[in-house]
Amino acid sequence: MIFQAEVRIELKPGVIDAEGETIHKSLKLLSYPVVNVNTVKVYVITLEADSSEDAKKEIDGACRRLLANPVIQNYSIHIENA
Amino acid sequence: MIFQAEVRIELKPGVIDAEGETIHKSLKLLSYPVVNVNTVKVYVITLEADSSEDAKKEIDGACRRLLANPVIQNYSIHIENA
Repeated sequence: MIFQAEVRIELKPGVIDAEGETIHKSLKLLSYPVVNVNTVKVYVITLEADSSEDAKKEIDGACRRLLANPVIQNYSIHIENA
Repeated sequence: MIFQAEVRIELKPGVIDAEGETIHKSLKLLSYPVVNVNTVKVYVITLEADSSEDAKKEIDGACRRLLANPVIQNYSIHIENA
């Protein structure tokens, strides 16, 4: 079966989000009433797996091995049927 | 009032997602049963506005002026009370 996984990777609390801060400053310069900006990276991954649980296991492994940096990032995985 | 806007920026269909393709190849090399990978950029923006509609208008303007490239990207905005 084909599943679609959405992997959401965010910086852990306390880690400086340089891109978010730059965008925050730029939006302030353009007079937008912005208080804070955080950036999140999302990977939408289509994969083959026997079940939703298997798909989640595969993607969890991929996050730990390749997609996320556990020192500074948290990730969450949402699986749905494609 | 304080609102939280989630801006989701994706490449338009037909635009090559180089980062997604690189991740796809890397996951294949690691033997993950991946069919496709797309990348999405999300900005979580906290802002002050009088109403949810005003917040959406501000963020829509910010997307058009700064955050998204309308030639190659689509964006969607989701507003909620912070």
